[in-house]
Amino acid sequence: MSDPTTALDAEVVATLKGVSTATITTLLLKKGLRKVWMHGPKPLRPGQPRCVGRAFTLRFVPAREDLASPAAWASPRSTRVAIEDMPAGAIAVVDAMGTTDAGIFGDILCARMVRRGVSALITDGVVRDAIGVNATGLPVWCQGSVAPSSAAGLIFANWQDAIGCGGVAVFPGDIVVADEDGAVLIPDAHLAEVLAQGPEQERMEGWIMERVEEGSALPGLYPMNEATKARYEADRKD
Amino acid sequence: MSDPTTALDAEVVATLKGVSTATITTLLLKKGLRKVWMHGPKPLRPGQPRCVGRAFTLRFVPAREDLASPAAWASPRSTRVAIEDMPAGAIAVVDAMGTTDAGIFGDILCARMVRRGVSALITDGVVRDAIGVNATGLPVWCQGSVAPSSAAGLIFANWQDAIGCGGVAVFPGDIVVADEDGAVLIPDAHLAEVLAQGPEQERMEGWIMERVEEGSALPGLYPMNEATKARYEADRKD
Amino acid sequence: MSDPTTALDAEVVATLKGVSTATITTLLLKKGLRKVWMHGPKPLRPGQPRCVGRAFTLRFVPAREDLASPAAWASPRSTRVAIEDMPAGAIAVVDAMGTTDAGIFGDILCARMVRRGVSALITDGVVRDAIGVNATGLPVWCQGSVAPSSAAGLIFANWQDAIGCGGVAVFPGDIVVADEDGAVLIPDAHLAEVLAQGPEQERMEGWIMERVEEGSALPGLYPMNEATKARYEADRKD
Amino acid sequence: MSDPTTALDAEVVATLKGVSTATITTLLLKKGLRKVWMHGPKPLRPGQPRCVGRAFTLRFVPAREDLASPAAWASPRSTRVAIEDMPAGAIAVVDAMGTTDAGIFGDILCARMVRRGVSALITDGVVRDAIGVNATGLPVWCQGSVAPSSAAGLIFANWQDAIGCGGVAVFPGDIVVADEDGAVLIPDAHLAEVLAQGPEQERMEGWIMERVEEGSALPGLYPMNEATKARYEADRKD
Amino acid sequence: MSDPTTALDAEVVATLKGVSTATITTLLLKKGLRKVWMHGPKPLRPGQPRCVGRAFTLRFVPAREDLASPAAWASPRSTRVAIEDMPAGAIAVVDAMGTTDAGIFGDILCARMVRRGVSALITDGVVRDAIGVNATGLPVWCQGSVAPSSAAGLIFANWQDAIGCGGVAVFPGDIVVADEDGAVLIPDAHLAEVLAQGPEQERMEGWIMERVEEGSALPGLYPMNEATKARYEADRKD
Amino acid sequence: MSDPTTALDAEVVATLKGVSTATITTLLLKKGLRKVWMHGPKPLRPGQPRCVGRAFTLRFVPAREDLASPAAWASPRSTRVAIEDMPAGAIAVVDAMGTTDAGIFGDILCARMVRRGVSALITDGVVRDAIGVNATGLPVWCQGSVAPSSAAGLIFANWQDAIGCGGVAVFPGDIVVADEDGAVLIPDAHLAEVLAQGPEQERMEGWIMERVEEGSALPGLYPMNEATKARYEADRKD
Repeated sequence: MSDPTTALDAEVVATLKGVSTATITTLLLKKGLRKVWMHGPKPLRPGQPRCVGRAFTLRFVPAREDLASPAAWASPRSTRVAIEDMPAGAIAVVDAMGTTDAGIFGDILCARMVRRGVSALITDGVVRDAIGVNATGLPVWCQGSVAPSSAAGLIFANWQDAIGCGGVAVFPGDIVVADEDGAVLIPDAHLAEVLAQGPEQERMEGWIMERVEEGSALPGLYPMNEATKARYEADRKD
Repeated sequence: MSDPTTALDAEVVATLKGVSTATITTLLLKKGLRKVWMHGPKPLRPGQPRCVGRAFTLRFVPAREDLASPAAWASPRSTRVAIEDMPAGAIAVVDAMGTTDAGIFGDILCARMVRRGVSALITDGVVRDAIGVNATGLPVWCQGSVAPSSAAGLIFANWQDAIGCGGVAVFPGDIVVADEDGAVLIPDAHLAEVLAQGPEQERMEGWIMERVEEGSALPGLYPMNEATKARYEADRKD
Repeated sequence: MSDPTTALDAEVVATLKGVSTATITTLLLKKGLRKVWMHGPKPLRPGQPRCVGRAFTLRFVPAREDLASPAAWASPRSTRVAIEDMPAGAIAVVDAMGTTDAGIFGDILCARMVRRGVSALITDGVVRDAIGVNATGLPVWCQGSVAPSSAAGLIFANWQDAIGCGGVAVFPGDIVVADEDGAVLIPDAHLAEVLAQGPEQERMEGWIMERVEEGSALPGLYPMNEATKARYEADRKD
Repeated sequence: MSDPTTALDAEVVATLKGVSTATITTLLLKKGLRKVWMHGPKPLRPGQPRCVGRAFTLRFVPAREDLASPAAWASPRSTRVAIEDMPAGAIAVVDAMGTTDAGIFGDILCARMVRRGVSALITDGVVRDAIGVNATGLPVWCQGSVAPSSAAGLIFANWQDAIGCGGVAVFPGDIVVADEDGAVLIPDAHLAEVLAQGPEQERMEGWIMERVEEGSALPGLYPMNEATKARYEADRKD
Repeated sequence: MSDPTTALDAEVVATLKGVSTATITTLLLKKGLRKVWMHGPKPLRPGQPRCVGRAFTLRFVPAREDLASPAAWASPRSTRVAIEDMPAGAIAVVDAMGTTDAGIFGDILCARMVRRGVSALITDGVVRDAIGVNATGLPVWCQGSVAPSSAAGLIFANWQDAIGCGGVAVFPGDIVVADEDGAVLIPDAHLAEVLAQGPEQERMEGWIMERVEEGSALPGLYPMNEATKARYEADRKD
Repeated sequence: MSDPTTALDAEVVATLKGVSTATITTLLLKKGLRKVWMHGPKPLRPGQPRCVGRAFTLRFVPAREDLASPAAWASPRSTRVAIEDMPAGAIAVVDAMGTTDAGIFGDILCARMVRRGVSALITDGVVRDAIGVNATGLPVWCQGSVAPSSAAGLIFANWQDAIGCGGVAVFPGDIVVADEDGAVLIPDAHLAEVLAQGPEQERMEGWIMERVEEGSALPGLYPMNEATKARYEADRKD
């Protein structure tokens, strides 16, 4: 991966918008990758669309009373400066160390991210001002909303570092997909496989679902035995 | 209890559908039973109806990389075979050891359960593909939804064993009732009592609520003192 | 604070209804107060209005089988008697020690609170019978709903004691504000400041949001540098 | 129980020193009492003797920055005043809400408790200065030691209130026994039974242990069947 | 694996006693096995020897007041009967669902296990009567000791089932090794590899440690580069 | 602070070795600093001496199967290279995100740190091979020991970054003191104060302890009222 801030190709985004995070974890599990789904981030608003983008990472550390204050928000190493560095199409992935009593961002910062074309915000922490954040239209995956600002418990450390988010290692530029079931990471080296196999996996599961709705029993159908595979292949060719 | 797979009598189901899980726990507490409400399972979809049925139990153990794989889903001791063994009207109760990062079932398995006439799915774990699962119409009580499949963290061990679910011991054939407040278990030996006293308890609490709405104070009303009891009995006879 | 049961002035309530809990935590943080937001209480029903009132405290301790029983509900030191002592406009704040498997109150007690003019119920525990509680119209902030009654895990200890709720010390008469982002406490000694600065803080953040929507970048805008402050002041005077 | 500060009779103390907390929980379980063992308190120093006394309760609530400070330690409602109120032979039982990052007491307060004849200190929280505390000779059951003082996270609320400690309701004057396996509470109403049956239970288990060491199998021995009971009775009479 | 109760060969036991659990996890990780170390079990007594044996599994489910009582200990599906079924040399591995407020076994049951030649007891729960248990000489890995018996929170479900213990799947007959760093499982299929490579891995790490003590820097030494490997091979031949 | 790798002055180290972490937290609390004690790190070996040094920070993120392997240990961004960069007298402070199932370091790495003159190792995670680590003589504060290596759950991210350790923000060069009660951080800007006031605070508390041992009551003594202060000052001059 040459440049972590290069936007994903539009076709890649379109293809991944048709592949569920459930399917992506199944495909990556076959490659031995189990730690790709982030524990914690959930949709802030019901019905958020599936989002796809390259990870733009941010990292917080715990607050210390001599350092965490509204004054720090004007520092050159602030979340404000980081946001101005986010490329269009990126997904901001924020390591808040799972903190659930200090909101990383509120409505103003989220509104600015929308203006910059950021696709989504994902964190293992929380936001503040849920109503305001949702009003900006930014799709957010987090652990909910609280009143206190980040200064109540966090200091911003840096951006575009390797981070952990919800038990998953995230490097700048990794591909992230988020939907109703949460957020998953696709390492760059596995993107081609997911693009190749994802749509077919969705098609196959759709076909199996039709058989279940017709009344078929599960053994031999899911996973498919040879007879079922043959029938599926025949149907596909029609 | 002779056969744990015998369906509950339709009248029993109808009566229990009119008794809230809150009321059932109150009645069982009077018998000294405190550990009957499952910690963890919550409605996956808002507005799910109250469900009643005999428990059909399933049990998972932690995954081990040499054993947990999509290939294992075709084994004779798989969730697929267990589902084909579920009788109509049963409630599947699944011991996932509280695991919240690997979904026990997705839409295909839930759709098959619907076809088999299963009344509900209850687990201290999670499902995957919330949208797909909800589309099957199966009422589910769980800790939410995630992307990874069971293979990411669980191996299926057996069905119709004694299990624990949300801190409650569940034996095959125990009666389970689930509603907005979660899932409770009625040991077979206490079913008759609950059937006898449940509707009356609901009626009495409804009468108390009417008094509160009229402006009555709580002491002497709830719980009732002798004067209130007399008034209630008089009203009942009308 | 002379009398913790004196109702808040109507104008104070009206002003605080226009200040978000997020803004209140920001103002109190500037005074060095970090532990004012309660960890745990969340709105039971979507769309609950912002609530404001003086805290009326209640305190539970763990159940002991020889003491926790429906019979205890008739004792002179019961929740029933405490409820009859709540003044109109108060917010009941309940220390349930974070217990999530025994509901402190159900629909009947909440209905009585509504009749007494109580503004809201806030607890670090849970309620029972969510549908019934919501039907009473009482705004509730809690950790969700369960079937078991308080007798399953709690004994009522006292009311109008100093308590802890969600990691915050609450004294009778402290001011409490709750909205979508949870509940915050304003110590009486800081009320005047919050009343003075809250509306201005909301106005200023609204102005900043307009600038963001116009496309302004964050550095220099939020927090404001001198040039932005001057522009803001000029706009205000218009 | 007339006066919670009356010391336990010396004979009662002597008898209970010969009955393990394990045996006490077994006897109380037969009476339906399950919630009598405190979750959290463990011996601070290896080899502490078994301690017996009436509970003298103390209660903390969370700190608030405007209230928690070294200055508060001089208030009339301080831990210092409470300690001066502790009778000889009492066991101080402290509700710290399970807080593990602020030590309730250090060496100075513990040394004073020793001077006042206090038998032990039990808390679901932690102490500070483990070496200093152990040097005072006061037997302590807690969750370990930390550097910060109570002011870092706690405010002292009151003494001789009903409290919770490690999930157990403790009322002033309840009997407490603590040993290697932690601390248990004997409600006053059950003291006579424990005194009557405890020593016999210990004797019986000792006899069973001798049989196991001779090579007896467990079924029929533990619990005893009729034949074993007869043999035990015969041995006892010798 | 034909019979899970066949004792391990004495030579296998002797070899594994010379291989640390740390080394075993390293060897199994190279085979892709990450979930083999049990989270929770720690040595009950300082200085316990390393123990090796085949797993004999036991499984508990949560207590229910109508089922969990001292009377149940005489049932044919009791822990007593299970213990009488344990072969000499086995390691009892007990799934207590991580329960830390009800001790699975006390001194009498442990003493009987010693008499039957059981090598060790491993559980993700706790024991009761730590002093008595340690006096039996049985090496125990657990989460500590408590006063309450299993009846306070657990019902015995079965033995020689597939279980989970500390997040690891354990099947009857799997090989278990426990030492100061806890307990690890070796699937039967990987035993030969561990026997072949373990002693060599220990030897190599000992040689590296000698180089560190001589003052060598880490890069190139650990892990070894080609030059270091050559030097090591040369030394080995001496 | 110009250079975070400059060793502390020997006199500074000597002075701080005479000031307990308890006293340091009291002094910093007076300056409004509450978040300076690390939650988690405890002495690995009983009786470890108090250690003092500048923080040398290391940071891990979660493992990903395609990245975490023994092979990664030879990378230029490895813990090995970081260790070779540690100056004599430093205290290594390691952000393991509180991970307790993968040991950050074992005996070989700790032995090398001893050779380089590192004063201590502090982490919110765990080590592996407790016996080997203790044999190296390196004083370690951590959450215990486990068998699996870091590769089982962690990837090394970087060194000399701002990190979080046990809820405390640690910057390279901050002063760290660790003893029986855990580890505290002294921001550089507050070092002079701690050096000035620490020894006096220890002296004063020693004098108070003598008074307690003579039988003085606490009120007026601790904290001191004016009369006590006068007496103390008089004694000091003797």
